Amino acid sequence: MDLTADTAALADATAEATRLLAPRYTEPVLAGLLLHATADGLTLAGNDRERAVSLSCAAIAHTEGTVLVPAKPLAETLRALEDPAVRLVVEGSQLAVRVPGARFALPLLDRDLHPGAGAPATDPVAEVDAIALATALRTVAGTAAKDDSLPMFTGVRMHGDGTLLRLVGSDRYRMATASLPMRGTAPFDVLVPAGLLGELAKLAGGTVRLHTAPNRFGASWGSVHVSTAVLDGGFLSPDAIQTSTVDTTLRIDAGALAAAVRRIGLYTDAGGVLELAVADGEIRLSGANQRSGEATEHVKADVSGGRTSPSFQVRYLLDALRPFTGQEVSLGIQPGMRATIVSAVDPGDVNITYYVMPMRAPGR
Amino acid sequence: MDLTADTAALADATAEATRLLAPRYTEPVLAGLLLHATADGLTLAGNDRERAVSLSCAAIAHTEGTVLVPAKPLAETLRALEDPAVRLVVEGSQLAVRVPGARFALPLLDRDLHPGAGAPATDPVAEVDAIALATALRTVAGTAAKDDSLPMFTGVRMHGDGTLLRLVGSDRYRMATASLPMRGTAPFDVLVPAGLLGELAKLAGGTVRLHTAPNRFGASWGSVHVSTAVLDGGFLSPDAIQTSTVDTTLRIDAGALAAAVRRIGLYTDAGGVLELAVADGEIRLSGANQRSGEATEHVKADVSGGRTSPSFQVRYLLDALRPFTGQEVSLGIQPGMRATIVSAVDPGDVNITYYVMPMRAPGR
Repeated sequence: MDLTADTAALADATAEATRLLAPRYTEPVLAGLLLHATADGLTLAGNDRERAVSLSCAAIAHTEGTVLVPAKPLAETLRALEDPAVRLVVEGSQLAVRVPGARFALPLLDRDLHPGAGAPATDPVAEVDAIALATALRTVAGTAAKDDSLPMFTGVRMHGDGTLLRLVGSDRYRMATASLPMRGTAPFDVLVPAGLLGELAKLAGGTVRLHTAPNRFGASWGSVHVSTAVLDGGFLSPDAIQTSTVDTTLRIDAGALAAAVRRIGLYTDAGGVLELAVADGEIRLSGANQRSGEATEHVKADVSGGRTSPSFQVRYLLDALRPFTGQEVSLGIQPGMRATIVSAVDPGDVNITYYVMPMRAPGR
Repeated sequence: MDLTADTAALADATAEATRLLAPRYTEPVLAGLLLHATADGLTLAGNDRERAVSLSCAAIAHTEGTVLVPAKPLAETLRALEDPAVRLVVEGSQLAVRVPGARFALPLLDRDLHPGAGAPATDPVAEVDAIALATALRTVAGTAAKDDSLPMFTGVRMHGDGTLLRLVGSDRYRMATASLPMRGTAPFDVLVPAGLLGELAKLAGGTVRLHTAPNRFGASWGSVHVSTAVLDGGFLSPDAIQTSTVDTTLRIDAGALAAAVRRIGLYTDAGGVLELAVADGEIRLSGANQRSGEATEHVKADVSGGRTSPSFQVRYLLDALRPFTGQEVSLGIQPGMRATIVSAVDPGDVNITYYVMPMRAPGR
């Protein structure tokens, strides 16, 4: 293999492939990137047996060929280069990365031990706007659990039917759902690892095509195609959360409420629980701890229904308000230890609902 | 005490006082800030028995008085406020921080347990430009040791005599010196904790006045005055480093060399040691490790004298080049395990010299 490529384009492609592969590898060879140079350009592919990724990059192949090299050192080297063009050429048992005055030589890894680039992409089952998908995933994938103790909570349920894509994520203590428009050709209902979807939200652009295959889910945009094994173990469903006993509804500016919650949060105890008291035309937030003292703040709100007044963990309430920054939100409050339902009063194309559990007030 | 102040100005003053106090307190009351309101405005003071800080802030005192309150909660509360004006008023055993719609109440601490604001500033022994001082301190204070095992290496020697301020810092493995112009009235030679000088470099502006008192060192600018106990245990001196056997001198662009060192650093082993080979009109940097492979880069240099070719720890060599970014540097290389001397070919008012120890080349 011997090729010349634009340094920045190749650095971007390599970085994107490296980020989309899972960060931990059980076998060293799975940390490799397959480079396949043809007259059409360069294809980069990785496969760690759970995730598979492939993308292409323009390149002039002087000699065609395929090599497997360590992904991270290649990505770091390309990112650090300043010359506009770079040459990748096999020299003995090494892939040399050459620019004028410098030579970086990566060891070739054994392709026989690598699972290969993975199956080619199936026809897409749906298309969705990347910006809308990223907006939904930032909240829903961010609400999934980070630890692996209960695998189903590390996934996002992606449910497509006709023209609506619905997402659900939960870590058991709170749940986020989102619905957004899509153009679908076949229904699907899969539980996809949230970690990959979080990366996808940062990297995807334009139109994202969704692909399904037995026990696998894929997404593609531009020349990038990434797929992953899906999770099983039951489906997350917002139907599991009781929402029928809402007796108090607030309409309030999400940013103003979040700013007040942050201030009162400076005066909560280690658990970070603040009390919310619903009054006429306003709510009162309060907190107290031994070190800082005590604090109370009033925030204007449109109050209807009863005066049910829950307490919340500061961090969870801020997470629930974050998707709605700059918007007016509705808080549907239920009595007892039932979830408060946060949604935009005037949602756009991406309709997010956040369910946050109240806490027992400090000292009760 | 009862006063009204501009929120942003009071938040800045409180944050500055809190940052200049040491981050660890042996007694809870030392985490307090003394607020002293008079017809002239507000004075803020802290004293943790090692450091003392005081500064003033414009305020309208409705009732004069002095209180001691926890510094960090006060600083965090003021920083989080959005209203342009804030009222601080004693209410019972609390200091209430009031803005329309909100009240934050900090506990009053026992002033009898606090050492007080500290002695007033003595007459300055020197004046120095804050920007020049900060430039010198960023390198010299940054080179001092972070751990307390040998206290003298956690200090910066500040030596003033006539019109020149000389600074020396070392962690035993490398040493940085700087000299810069000052206007002095009395000679001084003190070892000042580097941690405080690092904060001073970030906060001071305009002209910095230096103050000495028995076993203490102080600095003041604007209304801010900070002082600290000095360290003892001997003086750091560049005279301890042998520099007479320089046989190879390089002149090279500091930024180009640092960029190449960073690239080759991707190919060094865990210890991060790269080899530098001096040739005609250029140097060659090389590194190798099992994971990434091997790398070589040539950088143009003006070489004079011999061809002595040391190896360096990547991190230390980058630290030695950082003060000279954008400038041409001279590297004075000595044979054997003797320091390489890095300095600007054309230094400005602030003249920095960095002494970096070579390492044994990998596998030798």
